[in-house]
Amino acid sequence: MNLDEILQHEETLDPQDWQAMRSLGHRMVDDMITYLQTLRERPAWQPIPQQVKERLHQPLPQQPEGAEVAYQDFLENVLPYPHGNIHPRYWGFVNGTGTVLGMFAEMLAAAMNPNVGGADHSAVYVERQVLDWCKEMLGYPPEASGILVSGGSMANLLGLAVARNTKTDFDIRTEGVRAAPGMMTVYCSSETHSSVQKAVELLGLGNKALRKVPMDREYRLDSAHLEKMIAEDRQAGYLPFCVVGTAGTVNTGAIDPLNRLADICRREGLWFHVDGAFGSLAALLPEMRDRLSGMARADSLAFDLHKWMYLPYEAGCVLVKSKAAHEKAFAVVPAYLAKHERGLMAGPEWFANYGIQLTRGFRALKAWLVLKEHGLDKFRRLIRQNIAQAQYLASLVEKSESLKLLAPVPLNVVCFRFTSARLDEKALNELNRELLMELHERGIAVPTSTVLQGKYALRVAITNHRSRKEDFETLVREAERLGKECLQ
Amino acid sequence: MNLDEILQHEETLDPQDWQAMRSLGHRMVDDMITYLQTLRERPAWQPIPQQVKERLHQPLPQQPEGAEVAYQDFLENVLPYPHGNIHPRYWGFVNGTGTVLGMFAEMLAAAMNPNVGGADHSAVYVERQVLDWCKEMLGYPPEASGILVSGGSMANLLGLAVARNTKTDFDIRTEGVRAAPGMMTVYCSSETHSSVQKAVELLGLGNKALRKVPMDREYRLDSAHLEKMIAEDRQAGYLPFCVVGTAGTVNTGAIDPLNRLADICRREGLWFHVDGAFGSLAALLPEMRDRLSGMARADSLAFDLHKWMYLPYEAGCVLVKSKAAHEKAFAVVPAYLAKHERGLMAGPEWFANYGIQLTRGFRALKAWLVLKEHGLDKFRRLIRQNIAQAQYLASLVEKSESLKLLAPVPLNVVCFRFTSARLDEKALNELNRELLMELHERGIAVPTSTVLQGKYALRVAITNHRSRKEDFETLVREAERLGKECLQ
Repeated sequence: MNLDEILQHEETLDPQDWQAMRSLGHRMVDDMITYLQTLRERPAWQPIPQQVKERLHQPLPQQPEGAEVAYQDFLENVLPYPHGNIHPRYWGFVNGTGTVLGMFAEMLAAAMNPNVGGADHSAVYVERQVLDWCKEMLGYPPEASGILVSGGSMANLLGLAVARNTKTDFDIRTEGVRAAPGMMTVYCSSETHSSVQKAVELLGLGNKALRKVPMDREYRLDSAHLEKMIAEDRQAGYLPFCVVGTAGTVNTGAIDPLNRLADICRREGLWFHVDGAFGSLAALLPEMRDRLSGMARADSLAFDLHKWMYLPYEAGCVLVKSKAAHEKAFAVVPAYLAKHERGLMAGPEWFANYGIQLTRGFRALKAWLVLKEHGLDKFRRLIRQNIAQAQYLASLVEKSESLKLLAPVPLNVVCFRFTSARLDEKALNELNRELLMELHERGIAVPTSTVLQGKYALRVAITNHRSRKEDFETLVREAERLGKECLQ
Repeated sequence: MNLDEILQHEETLDPQDWQAMRSLGHRMVDDMITYLQTLRERPAWQPIPQQVKERLHQPLPQQPEGAEVAYQDFLENVLPYPHGNIHPRYWGFVNGTGTVLGMFAEMLAAAMNPNVGGADHSAVYVERQVLDWCKEMLGYPPEASGILVSGGSMANLLGLAVARNTKTDFDIRTEGVRAAPGMMTVYCSSETHSSVQKAVELLGLGNKALRKVPMDREYRLDSAHLEKMIAEDRQAGYLPFCVVGTAGTVNTGAIDPLNRLADICRREGLWFHVDGAFGSLAALLPEMRDRLSGMARADSLAFDLHKWMYLPYEAGCVLVKSKAAHEKAFAVVPAYLAKHERGLMAGPEWFANYGIQLTRGFRALKAWLVLKEHGLDKFRRLIRQNIAQAQYLASLVEKSESLKLLAPVPLNVVCFRFTSARLDEKALNELNRELLMELHERGIAVPTSTVLQGKYALRVAITNHRSRKEDFETLVREAERLGKECLQ
């Protein structure tokens, strides 16, 4: 086909029939609203039948099916088998729930479809506003820097990258890690999230440079031990440059002694990074503020809006106290991105200079809309409610004859197991593992699991705005019942 | 407030009035469909008035505004000022356009709101299917590995991370870059995307380890020079481990001699990574396949579905030929993510073990739905159409008395400038810069710019399914007219 022919038969991906597409959109809104309104009537999780898995294993489509047929396939084979975190009785991993306006916001963002890597358009200003709100929420100064990212793993990576690049007295972006006169070490507790290890590895430091400080009885970093390790490591010729504190560990919700860590970092000249993926948001509550006050002293702070702010995926954030350090760690401006004074290529600082991504979607819109919709006070009440629910669940477990708490409950995470005097530790681990899978398969509820000091634990992490008191009663009743079934 | 009181007043972020939220959703669908249907009637870009910027700089909302008021704010202050890449006369940077069903897909994905880091639920199978389709599209074997990511920058970072970790004969994840007995070097052309530099820096290698090979006259990596540099570097004690080839450079759309690079990598035992952010998709066209055939020989291949597959943000992808190498580079499985045989915690390989993110949104859904909707043949025709439009624009520029092409047009990127015998190079650069800003400010069209051998260029990158022949005629006519205006 020659040029003329091609240009005479121009096509587009826009609908041929706009009215039909409009109707399809309306149908989708109806279906999704009904779906979310009736969540409680459906199982918390259900396995995917084999024939559905086969339906999701089709050849690459060469010819059009049309939007309606594609949507029908979605309705039949995708929608009925969600991860589960939208359900009132889901408390797995640390997954947020999402909200209805958050869902619509994703549609609006994709309609505008801006690249928020930089340039001069409204999405840039919306993200700046959301970042300002985040700073205010978490006690960070207005002049601090920040960027929205995919989630906590990326936020931790960015924080540690800025730490690594700032805490070297040579140009590490040019010279690389090899130029350091010794091993650059990072400190965190043994309960720190695995993304910190991944970040240290990616940054070329090697995970042996990640020094895991023992925890105290309440799963918090033992700061006396930290001081000892730093001193010993300096003695051995290592180059300590960063301490990672956690506000809400993934296993038990423990909060490290953040003020203590901030003191040590200041004294030792180390970067203080806080992984506050979910726990940092508890600082919105006046009654929690004291325990989290050290957080605002961090040089960088990672957290998620898609966990305890209940937004749909993806919405993480990292704040960095020094804007200069943040930019210096990432900025590269090739000719084709050169800033102009007017037109699209103007605008405030380009986000691309503050992170890894150049192309960036409009993550900020859902945060902006949902915060405006509900106001921060409502989020305060919901976070407080989740903490109260965790306390309530812990109290139910403590009252139970067959269930036993396995860790303190300082926040919104409850670890417990079914016990029986007849079984040894190994058998108890097996029984509880089976119990968890039964809870899932029967669609009753979705805790997930962890292992605490060798004990397999059912783990409930509550970042769910749909859960009610009765849901935790159901969990306890069913865990007792199924535990006994497994025992027989 | 005590526990009982909190639990007796449970709240949720779900709508109090579901019917009102349903109506709002319908209104949004109508507004967005109308918005997209009437794009052509609006300016390609427009500046944000000062009072709107002020409206986007409000205090953190403590009290609820409600969804309708928040949406109204969006309609008035956000929607009218998009980046522009949805518009028919936008050809800036390399930004895709988005599609209507792609937009709806984002809503559907946020309704289900799955965490696609792993576990057993439908989104995992949809992403696996999309990855299989991507492999087939780009000539990768079915047993290859892959993962959807935020975009090309992340895809390049992941590819280079696997390269770094695989091409060392010690455990670099544990030992770090310091353990290498010399500087580990990466090779790419001087036209390679800046994200490769950012990746090399982040990986701790130092950007001096990124060896920039000169280009030939057509902006392609000069492979003879590459061979010489590798030999010299080995002589100097460096450790070459990776070559990055580009399928479609950002400045001019040049395609490196990929087969030649693959040969060199095989002979030298180096990892071959291809950055095919947009250009790789041209391999869908039989007439382009020869020039891109070396791409399928790459050990890793980065590309975007949100560029030349026109999907809304974010949707990048990296494919890695060795699944084992891919997993080995990233897998970390803490206790709380331990896989089970049944229930939610079962499922195929967890995506979190193949990249940086643990929490991952449902990026795959838009790709799955839109590919099914249109079929791959339609994408072939549209990519061909964009290439033809680039040729057409180049021919218009060549016919123009005042415009001049500044680089060959091998793909979909056209670089040109307004010229005048009266002006020296410096003045020409200034004039063209002014011309670009005028094109934007008047809402006529959105090329962006680059600098080629010291010459400021207006740069048109066509990954837009809404552009028509007449749009390029408008651009040329207006560039001539405004150029003359600027001259006076």
